[in-house]
Amino acid sequence: MARRAGSNGAETAEKLRNAALELFARSGYAAVSMRAIAAETGVQAGAIYNHFPTKQDLLNDLLQVHMETLLSSWEEAEKPDLAPPAALENFVRFHIRYHLTRSREVFISYMELRSLEGENFSAIEALRRKYESFPRAILEKGASDGSFDIIDPQVTTMAIIAMLNGMTTWFRGNGRLSLDEIEALYVRLVARLVGQKKED
Amino acid sequence: MARRAGSNGAETAEKLRNAALELFARSGYAAVSMRAIAAETGVQAGAIYNHFPTKQDLLNDLLQVHMETLLSSWEEAEKPDLAPPAALENFVRFHIRYHLTRSREVFISYMELRSLEGENFSAIEALRRKYESFPRAILEKGASDGSFDIIDPQVTTMAIIAMLNGMTTWFRGNGRLSLDEIEALYVRLVARLVGQKKED
Repeated sequence: MARRAGSNGAETAEKLRNAALELFARSGYAAVSMRAIAAETGVQAGAIYNHFPTKQDLLNDLLQVHMETLLSSWEEAEKPDLAPPAALENFVRFHIRYHLTRSREVFISYMELRSLEGENFSAIEALRRKYESFPRAILEKGASDGSFDIIDPQVTTMAIIAMLNGMTTWFRGNGRLSLDEIEALYVRLVARLVGQKKED
Repeated sequence: MARRAGSNGAETAEKLRNAALELFARSGYAAVSMRAIAAETGVQAGAIYNHFPTKQDLLNDLLQVHMETLLSSWEEAEKPDLAPPAALENFVRFHIRYHLTRSREVFISYMELRSLEGENFSAIEALRRKYESFPRAILEKGASDGSFDIIDPQVTTMAIIAMLNGMTTWFRGNGRLSLDEIEALYVRLVARLVGQKKED
C-alpha cells in the first residue's frame, strides 16, 4: 500500500494521509483533488504520485490502515481468558475508546465506502466482517455456557456495534455525563441486549 | 423554501430535488454543481435558480423536507392511547419501515450535515431533537408507570435510534431474515434495552 521504507518517505506518506483524511471528511472524496491534498501538506504536486499513484489508492490506503489498526488494537486489548460477561464489557470499552478519538476515520469509513472500487470495497468489507466476528464469538460463547440469553447472535452483534458507533457520533466531552459514566451506561445497555444473567 | 404554487412548478422542483438527492448521495454535495443537477433533470440550467436560488437552499430543502415528512408521518402513525410497551413497539416498527425505503435521505442527512450553513444546521438539529423527544416521552411514561426499568432516558433513546438506523443500513431484503422477522427481533431487543417487564 505505498508505504515507503525510508523514514522521510514514511513521514511524507503520513502527512499526505492526514491531509486526505481532513479534506475528505470536510468535502467528500469526489470534491478533493490530489493537487489540493499536496497543497495542504506542502508536498510538491508531482511528488504525491510517488506515494499514491491514484486518489483511489490513497482512499483505499486510509480505509485499510484504519481497519487494520482497529484489528491489531483489538488483538492487543482482547483478553481471551475472560468469561463472556467480562469479555463483552472489555469489548464495549475498547470499541468506544478506540472510535471516540477517530471520528474522521469513522465518518469516512462509512461515507466513502461508495467511492471504493470493486476489489478495494470487498477487501474493506472482509476486514469489517472479521472485526464483527470478535464480539459475535463472545456472544456465542456466552450463549453456550449460559451467561447470556441471546435473541439472535448476528442481529445482536450488529445492534451492539451500531449502538456504540452512534454514541461516538453524539458524545461531547463537556456534556452531562463523563466518558466514564457513558461507558458504564453502555456496558449495562449491552448486558441487557445479550440477556446477561444477574444484570442490575 | 422555494416551493411554487403552480403544479408544473411543483413538479419541476420535485424533479430537481430527486436529482439532487441522487447526485449528492453518489458524489457528495461539494462535488455536485447546480448545472449537473439541471442536466440530470433536463431542466434549463438557468431555470433551476427560480426554484432554488443556491445549492445550499436545495440541500437545506432536502433535509428539511425529509425531517418534516418524518415528523408528520410519525404524528399519523402515533397512537397516543397505547400503553408504553405497545407504544414503543409501534415506534420501533414505524422507524424501521419509514427509514428502510429512504436510504439516500438517511445517508445525506447524516453525511451532509457538515455542509449545512449556520442557521440551516440549527433548524435541522432542532427537528431532530423534536423527533427524538417522541420515543423519549414513551420511555419516561413507561418508567413512571412501572412498565420499564430505564437506565438513563436520554442515553437509552439515543441507543435505540442508533440501533434501528444501523439496521436500515445493513438490511437486504434477500437475506436470511425477512423484514417482518427482523422487525420482530428489534422489537424484542428494544424491549430489553428499556428493561421491559415480562419480556420473553
